[in-house]
Amino acid sequence: MYELGVVYRNIKRTDRATADGLASLGSATVHEAMGRVGLLKPYMRPIYAGAQVSGTAVTVLLHPGDNWMMHVVAEQIQPGDIVVAAITAECTDGYFGDLLATSFKARGARALVIDAGVRDVKTLTEMNFPVWSKAISSKGTIKATIGSVNIPVVCAGMLVTPGDVIVADDDGVVCVPAALAAKTLESARAREANEGDKRAKLASGVLGLDMYKMREPLEKAGLKYID
Amino acid sequence: MYELGVVYRNIKRTDRATADGLASLGSATVHEAMGRVGLLKPYMRPIYAGAQVSGTAVTVLLHPGDNWMMHVVAEQIQPGDIVVAAITAECTDGYFGDLLATSFKARGARALVIDAGVRDVKTLTEMNFPVWSKAISSKGTIKATIGSVNIPVVCAGMLVTPGDVIVADDDGVVCVPAALAAKTLESARAREANEGDKRAKLASGVLGLDMYKMREPLEKAGLKYID
Amino acid sequence: MYELGVVYRNIKRTDRATADGLASLGSATVHEAMGRVGLLKPYMRPIYAGAQVSGTAVTVLLHPGDNWMMHVVAEQIQPGDIVVAAITAECTDGYFGDLLATSFKARGARALVIDAGVRDVKTLTEMNFPVWSKAISSKGTIKATIGSVNIPVVCAGMLVTPGDVIVADDDGVVCVPAALAAKTLESARAREANEGDKRAKLASGVLGLDMYKMREPLEKAGLKYID
Amino acid sequence: MYELGVVYRNIKRTDRATADGLASLGSATVHEAMGRVGLLKPYMRPIYAGAQVSGTAVTVLLHPGDNWMMHVVAEQIQPGDIVVAAITAECTDGYFGDLLATSFKARGARALVIDAGVRDVKTLTEMNFPVWSKAISSKGTIKATIGSVNIPVVCAGMLVTPGDVIVADDDGVVCVPAALAAKTLESARAREANEGDKRAKLASGVLGLDMYKMREPLEKAGLKYID
Amino acid sequence: MYELGVVYRNIKRTDRATADGLASLGSATVHEAMGRVGLLKPYMRPIYAGAQVSGTAVTVLLHPGDNWMMHVVAEQIQPGDIVVAAITAECTDGYFGDLLATSFKARGARALVIDAGVRDVKTLTEMNFPVWSKAISSKGTIKATIGSVNIPVVCAGMLVTPGDVIVADDDGVVCVPAALAAKTLESARAREANEGDKRAKLASGVLGLDMYKMREPLEKAGLKYID
Amino acid sequence: MYELGVVYRNIKRTDRATADGLASLGSATVHEAMGRVGLLKPYMRPIYAGAQVSGTAVTVLLHPGDNWMMHVVAEQIQPGDIVVAAITAECTDGYFGDLLATSFKARGARALVIDAGVRDVKTLTEMNFPVWSKAISSKGTIKATIGSVNIPVVCAGMLVTPGDVIVADDDGVVCVPAALAAKTLESARAREANEGDKRAKLASGVLGLDMYKMREPLEKAGLKYID
Repeated sequence: MYELGVVYRNIKRTDRATADGLASLGSATVHEAMGRVGLLKPYMRPIYAGAQVSGTAVTVLLHPGDNWMMHVVAEQIQPGDIVVAAITAECTDGYFGDLLATSFKARGARALVIDAGVRDVKTLTEMNFPVWSKAISSKGTIKATIGSVNIPVVCAGMLVTPGDVIVADDDGVVCVPAALAAKTLESARAREANEGDKRAKLASGVLGLDMYKMREPLEKAGLKYID
Repeated sequence: MYELGVVYRNIKRTDRATADGLASLGSATVHEAMGRVGLLKPYMRPIYAGAQVSGTAVTVLLHPGDNWMMHVVAEQIQPGDIVVAAITAECTDGYFGDLLATSFKARGARALVIDAGVRDVKTLTEMNFPVWSKAISSKGTIKATIGSVNIPVVCAGMLVTPGDVIVADDDGVVCVPAALAAKTLESARAREANEGDKRAKLASGVLGLDMYKMREPLEKAGLKYID
Repeated sequence: MYELGVVYRNIKRTDRATADGLASLGSATVHEAMGRVGLLKPYMRPIYAGAQVSGTAVTVLLHPGDNWMMHVVAEQIQPGDIVVAAITAECTDGYFGDLLATSFKARGARALVIDAGVRDVKTLTEMNFPVWSKAISSKGTIKATIGSVNIPVVCAGMLVTPGDVIVADDDGVVCVPAALAAKTLESARAREANEGDKRAKLASGVLGLDMYKMREPLEKAGLKYID
Repeated sequence: MYELGVVYRNIKRTDRATADGLASLGSATVHEAMGRVGLLKPYMRPIYAGAQVSGTAVTVLLHPGDNWMMHVVAEQIQPGDIVVAAITAECTDGYFGDLLATSFKARGARALVIDAGVRDVKTLTEMNFPVWSKAISSKGTIKATIGSVNIPVVCAGMLVTPGDVIVADDDGVVCVPAALAAKTLESARAREANEGDKRAKLASGVLGLDMYKMREPLEKAGLKYID
Repeated sequence: MYELGVVYRNIKRTDRATADGLASLGSATVHEAMGRVGLLKPYMRPIYAGAQVSGTAVTVLLHPGDNWMMHVVAEQIQPGDIVVAAITAECTDGYFGDLLATSFKARGARALVIDAGVRDVKTLTEMNFPVWSKAISSKGTIKATIGSVNIPVVCAGMLVTPGDVIVADDDGVVCVPAALAAKTLESARAREANEGDKRAKLASGVLGLDMYKMREPLEKAGLKYID
Repeated sequence: MYELGVVYRNIKRTDRATADGLASLGSATVHEAMGRVGLLKPYMRPIYAGAQVSGTAVTVLLHPGDNWMMHVVAEQIQPGDIVVAAITAECTDGYFGDLLATSFKARGARALVIDAGVRDVKTLTEMNFPVWSKAISSKGTIKATIGSVNIPVVCAGMLVTPGDVIVADDDGVVCVPAALAAKTLESARAREANEGDKRAKLASGVLGLDMYKMREPLEKAGLKYID
């Protein structure tokens, strides 16, 4: 359960170089590098194609239909942060639009990840401010109830702690815990270094069956070929 | 419940200037201006990004898997109308494609809003004929059962009366009752006039907390800052 | 139920000219030409807009969270094939990314149709390798359990037999059984030949009511006009 | 769109004998008698099996997460009424529990039909107060915003006008417009009178194919038997 | 894709003793005995708790909103059969009620498994005629279009061939292909014979960890205990 | 993100009297007493009606389709515990049946709360072992991958820490953090003490409008009565 009505001003962010380094590797490679954990549910989709970012999480807990805390979290943003917004119940309302995006951007935020809806998506796209959300909706919200900022939250099924690294692209959103970020960056880079060579082989017609030496284990597992 | 088998030829459309004026304000601002009501459910999505329209509603009630009445409603279209199609039960079939779109466009329709599926979306996109729908599906329909035209219908959870104004864009679809259209246009314009100034302030780094004077009410509501 | 652990190497593909001829007609026209059957469920969506393909089906049966057989099916691909992947239970994991796409493309595959998730969609889009899927997800898969290749499978609710023709575009995915492919191509072409003329008439303002002579049957069905 | 903030005290209820007479016929027969319209979406389910009721609709429009108007509608209940509750947006919160049920029952209400959640279902079951709802949820609501009472509402996709007859049982919920209630009762009774005889024939092994003389039309429609 | 408009009168049913023997083992044990395949999607639920049946499949393919073929399949039922109904598209209408159930029962059917809706569930429960379905709905159907009887169909994602064994209970519905039925019965019985002893041990407080000798493999897999 | 491969043997359970005292108050009252937070998503439903329990949470993290850790958590159960099972991805498989229930019961568990499926529900009902789950499914699971026991988990959208109190009944499942349990028990009792009197008044026909003195605030909020 959540602690309500608090704003933690001092959070320990993953160091900048590590957090920034994960963006170019992408959510799929980072997810693999962590051992296939950390992914937010795949209903989280980008509002436009092509954005690929990483950054440190600042979190906000909101109530259904109420975006008051979005203004509170804005003040806690530092350059390089990604805002991760959780809601205390299911909601598809449009919590965030071009005015808040202008403010977030001015504070240095790189993106918003929200387990609810957003609006003004045409303008957000023009502003180049990426959002991953559960819904798009014109429905506005009120400002009546307080939540919290920078507490651990559950967003789209995943626990996100302030300071963790968020990696998001067209494939989805991954959360890398601060403690694992450096090691994950290293593993993800190792995986990627490996891929150019593999890609060239596969493009030349070499089969994964041979490249990965799968024929024998497949046979052992009982696979039969029938002509 | 619906009156079946009738076509109302004379409907009272919202006046043209008012109906047209709402397009540029967008569904989110119009929705706010009405007091956050009038939105069709957010599962209604545009078949392509970027269209932004308003117009007067002509309505059609269809049966599942049967698009016969689409040809009947075509005749009732006047320039500046948006066709709003409701179905008597849940259905994702493709009721509308490029031929009907050609006909609707020839009659002066600006868009289709349908609580079911459409097809030929590539051609519709090339034709620049926007559609907001629940689904996209190749599945065709038959022409066997009569419904009604220009009766009040429930589309994506919202009651739409013929002559109401429909405002639709990337954020969703809003229905503005004819009786409220003029007042809504005024309020929406007032809201928007206000926004340029706010945007500039937020872009310069002023916080919503200060601009909207939220610090005191947040404190009264019990918000605590922890260092 | 499925036969597990087998790879059929020799399948009878629909002849190339027929299979290739269906692409330009599109899934909606082909679906009509077959009598409105053969459509995969409309939750199958393209990862990017605009692709329109047809090809002969090679099938693969996978287990949830396990893409081992994707490497096995790669070897069975011949130029002009479309891989149709079914899963033994509901799953949204990302079974397929840019490495497998490189391999599939090198073997001559035209597309993938998969009743689960894919990833690396940005790269797949750049590679111009189209995929129709149920989900997009960074979540990777393991390689531990064998399924089958080139058995009849159920993909998105539709039975697909190896060698059938798959037609896929922005409107969805249709499966044309090999035995019906030639006849379907003929009917679909006849339908299309007909459409240019209809489109011109509708564009000039002629109503479908008149063009299709619907006024009398509508009256017989009881439709009343009210002024 | 809805008129907000009003309570209509005088509504024209369908006459008592007609409204009461529909209960024993059941929602399926009544739905057929109306020509297969009037059904609320099938996600509306009874909280316990076996209840079968009819009554006159009093309606209430609620906001998401706010049940204030439930107390307002209570005062408008007359013996034989069924309360029909619509929400201005999707919500599964528990708007109604044993205290409100005690009050509704004391006023003479026969049931609640609500397009949201309810709670205390164990006690409601013991009290024998039937509810048809979209969800069951412990989540309580606040009392902050006004809606309306006895305006036409859209509940589970169906327009319900105050005074209409609601028929609800294990199969679902049907709304019979006041103007059609007497005729529907008559048709429904005629249907049912007919069924005892049919049931006896079918129980003796007579086939529907013969009883309904379907063999010839099936043959005409092209049905082939293969031995 | 399906063959439309045909009724196969002669199907090869799994032998009676085998088909009947599977009922008491239940869907979960039978599913395990087959290697964890054959299960219809878990959205298929019984209309009342406690029924547990097995029988030979006769299949019927229906169109959305049209139950005409239910009368055709009735004639093909033999004692010990279970009717498996597939629909050519998603539909929740109530295809089946007490009259058809009376007829099916008179013909010797043990149950209905239908990938759509049913109605009269109160009466079906009193009649003790079990149904596994996707929905319950008062919405009736028409009799206008022909489908097929006793062709292989896809029901809730599973391919069912006429003559296969269906096992259904509170846990779901499993299809056992005729060719595997005898072997499955044997394996399922072996599994069950084993269970009484296990249950006694577990009830006495012995842990699965010890009974199944899991401690060593868990340790090898890297599991750490922390005090 | 989760710590994988660990079993915490020593957790701090909420004291027994407090944990036990919450059962009779029920999930709705407890949820109110906590300020309307702590509820698991309402898709969590009991496998049979009427059970009402509370207990201390022991948690287990499982992988999709793999129930190996259920045997590991069994050893950590103490009398009065409720097992809370989270899955690293969406899954509806049947992780738990009568054998595991026998073991859990022998260890003193009062219930299982699982964000996935269970099976053998008929036997579980006869054993009187309550389960709240997302699904019911015959589909079995394998034992191949390790997760964790007694780490904080996210179950149906709610963070559950080992030792928290779980309260579950027909209305849903609430998690009460250990630190708030005593205070919540007190508030919940105070709420309930209050209810008998209210119920009597409402049963006598007193309206909530008067009992709660709502007429004035409703009028202030703008509510209008129309005759």
